[in-house]
Amino acid sequence: MSKSVFYHAGCPVCQSAEQDIIALIGKEKVEIIHLGEEKNKIQEAEKHGVKSVPALLTPNGNVLHLNFGASMADVKG
Amino acid sequence: MSKSVFYHAGCPVCQSAEQDIIALIGKEKVEIIHLGEEKNKIQEAEKHGVKSVPALLTPNGNVLHLNFGASMADVKG
Repeated sequence: MSKSVFYHAGCPVCQSAEQDIIALIGKEKVEIIHLGEEKNKIQEAEKHGVKSVPALLTPNGNVLHLNFGASMADVKG
Repeated sequence: MSKSVFYHAGCPVCQSAEQDIIALIGKEKVEIIHLGEEKNKIQEAEKHGVKSVPALLTPNGNVLHLNFGASMADVKG
Protein backbone atom coordinates (compact mmCIF):
# COMPACT_ATOMS: atom_id res chain seq x y z
CA MET A 1 0.00 0.00 0.00
CA SER A 2 1.37 3.40 -0.87
CA LYS A 3 1.40 6.28 1.54
CA SER A 4 -1.33 8.71 2.43
CA VAL A 5 -0.55 12.42 2.32
CA PHE A 6 -1.62 14.71 5.14
CA TYR A 7 -1.87 18.34 4.02
CA HIS A 8 -1.91 21.02 6.67
CA ALA A 9 -0.95 24.62 7.28
CA GLY A 10 0.20 24.73 10.86
CA CYS A 11 -3.14 25.79 12.31
CA PRO A 12 -4.21 24.41 15.72
CA VAL A 13 -6.95 22.27 14.14
CA CYS A 14 -4.33 20.92 11.73
CA GLN A 15 -1.88 20.02 14.47
CA SER A 16 -4.50 18.21 16.50
CA ALA A 17 -5.69 16.25 13.47
CA GLU A 18 -2.10 15.44 12.52
CA GLN A 19 -1.48 13.82 15.89
CA ASP A 20 -4.71 11.83 15.57
CA ILE A 21 -3.92 10.65 12.06
CA ILE A 22 -0.39 9.61 12.98
CA ALA A 23 -1.71 7.70 15.99
CA LEU A 24 -4.38 5.99 13.88
CA ILE A 25 -2.50 5.17 10.71
CA GLY A 26 1.12 5.12 11.79
CA LYS A 27 3.84 7.67 11.11
CA GLU A 28 5.51 5.56 8.43
CA LYS A 29 2.34 5.45 6.35
CA VAL A 30 1.72 9.19 6.14
CA GLU A 31 3.66 11.88 4.36
CA ILE A 32 3.12 15.25 6.05
CA ILE A 33 3.08 18.35 3.86
CA HIS A 34 2.90 21.86 5.34
CA LEU A 35 1.35 23.94 2.57
CA GLY A 36 2.23 27.17 4.33
CA GLU A 37 5.92 26.27 4.05
CA GLU A 38 5.77 24.39 0.76
CA LYS A 39 3.60 26.68 -1.30
CA ASN A 40 4.77 25.03 -4.50
CA LYS A 41 2.69 22.02 -3.50
CA ILE A 42 -0.58 23.92 -3.22
CA GLN A 43 -1.43 23.38 -6.88
CA GLU A 44 -0.80 19.64 -6.58
CA ALA A 45 -3.03 19.48 -3.51
CA GLU A 46 -5.84 21.32 -5.29
CA LYS A 47 -5.53 19.01 -8.26
CA HIS A 48 -6.14 16.09 -5.92
CA GLY A 49 -9.30 17.79 -4.66
CA VAL A 50 -8.08 19.37 -1.44
CA LYS A 51 -10.41 22.28 -0.63
CA SER A 52 -9.37 23.02 2.94
CA VAL A 53 -6.82 21.91 5.50
CA PRO A 54 -6.27 19.66 7.30
CA ALA A 55 -6.95 17.04 4.65
CA LEU A 56 -5.84 13.49 4.08
CA LEU A 57 -5.23 12.18 0.58
CA THR A 58 -5.66 8.41 0.75
CA PRO A 59 -3.59 5.94 -1.28
CA ASN A 60 -6.55 5.39 -3.61
CA GLY A 61 -6.89 9.09 -4.36
CA ASN A 62 -9.79 10.11 -2.14
CA VAL A 63 -9.58 13.25 -0.08
CA LEU A 64 -10.86 13.27 3.48
CA HIS A 65 -11.27 16.80 4.83
CA LEU A 66 -10.77 16.48 8.58
CA ASN A 67 -12.66 19.06 10.59
CA PHE A 68 -11.89 22.53 9.27
CA GLY A 69 -8.78 24.57 9.86
CA ALA A 70 -8.44 26.88 6.88
CA SER A 71 -9.58 27.17 3.27
CA MET A 72 -7.11 26.90 0.44
CA ALA A 73 -7.67 30.63 -0.18
CA ASP A 74 -6.45 31.29 3.37
CA VAL A 75 -3.44 29.03 2.83
CA LYS A 76 -2.49 30.94 -0.31
CA GLY A 77 -2.74 34.13 1.75
CA MET B 1 -5.09 0.77 21.91
CA SER B 2 -8.84 0.78 22.09
CA LYS B 3 -11.03 1.05 19.04
CA SER B 4 -12.09 4.08 17.09
CA VAL B 5 -15.78 4.56 16.39
CA PHE B 6 -16.99 5.55 12.93
CA TYR B 7 -20.41 7.21 13.03
CA HIS B 8 -22.37 7.42 9.82
CA ALA B 9 -25.90 7.55 8.50
CA GLY B 10 -25.78 5.61 5.28
CA CYS B 11 -25.27 8.62 3.02
CA PRO B 12 -23.02 8.30 -0.05
CA VAL B 13 -20.35 10.53 1.50
CA CYS B 14 -20.49 8.32 4.61
CA GLN B 15 -20.08 5.10 2.66
CA SER B 16 -17.13 6.40 0.73
CA ALA B 17 -15.43 7.65 3.90
CA GLU B 18 -16.17 4.35 5.65
CA GLN B 19 -14.32 2.43 2.96
CA ASP B 20 -11.38 4.81 3.21
CA ILE B 21 -11.19 4.60 6.99
CA ILE B 22 -11.37 0.81 6.99
CA ALA B 23 -8.62 0.66 4.39
CA LEU B 24 -6.44 3.09 6.36
CA ILE B 25 -6.94 1.92 9.93
CA GLY B 26 -8.03 -1.69 9.55
CA LYS B 27 -11.49 -3.17 10.04
CA GLU B 28 -10.65 -4.69 13.41
CA LYS B 29 -9.75 -1.30 14.84
CA VAL B 30 -12.98 0.50 13.99
CA GLU B 31 -16.47 0.02 15.32
CA ILE B 32 -19.06 1.16 12.77
CA ILE B 33 -22.26 2.74 14.06
CA HIS B 34 -25.13 3.65 11.71
CA LEU B 35 -26.95 6.42 13.54
CA GLY B 36 -29.93 6.20 11.21
CA GLU B 37 -30.50 2.62 12.33
CA GLU B 38 -29.30 3.00 15.92
CA LYS B 39 -30.97 6.23 16.91
CA ASN B 40 -30.47 5.44 20.59
CA LYS B 41 -26.76 6.12 20.05
CA ILE B 42 -27.26 9.66 18.72
CA GLN B 43 -27.11 11.18 22.18
CA GLU B 44 -23.89 9.34 22.99
CA ALA B 45 -22.36 10.56 19.71
CA GLU B 46 -23.32 14.15 20.42
CA LYS B 47 -21.86 13.89 23.90
CA HIS B 48 -18.55 12.93 22.31
CA GLY B 49 -18.73 16.04 20.12
CA VAL B 50 -20.04 14.61 16.85
CA LYS B 51 -21.69 17.46 14.93
CA SER B 52 -22.13 15.83 11.54
CA VAL B 53 -21.60 12.50 9.82
CA PRO B 54 -19.43 10.82 8.79
CA ALA B 55 -17.25 11.28 11.86
CA LEU B 56 -14.52 9.29 13.52
CA LEU B 57 -14.16 9.23 17.27
CA THR B 58 -10.53 8.37 17.99
CA PRO B 59 -9.38 6.22 20.93
CA ASN B 60 -8.20 9.35 22.76
CA GLY B 61 -11.58 11.00 22.48
CA ASN B 62 -11.07 13.40 19.60
CA VAL B 63 -13.66 13.69 16.87
CA LEU B 64 -12.58 13.97 13.24
CA HIS B 65 -15.42 15.11 11.00
CA LEU B 66 -14.66 13.61 7.60
CA ASN B 67 -15.97 15.62 4.69
CA PHE B 68 -19.65 16.38 5.19
CA GLY B 69 -22.56 14.03 4.69
CA ALA B 70 -25.32 15.20 6.98
CA SER B 71 -25.78 17.26 10.13
CA MET B 72 -26.94 15.62 13.33
CA ALA B 73 -30.26 17.47 12.89
CA ASP B 74 -30.67 15.67 9.55
CA VAL B 75 -29.80 12.35 11.18
CA LYS B 76 -32.45 12.87 13.84
CA GLY B 77 -34.90 13.75 11.05
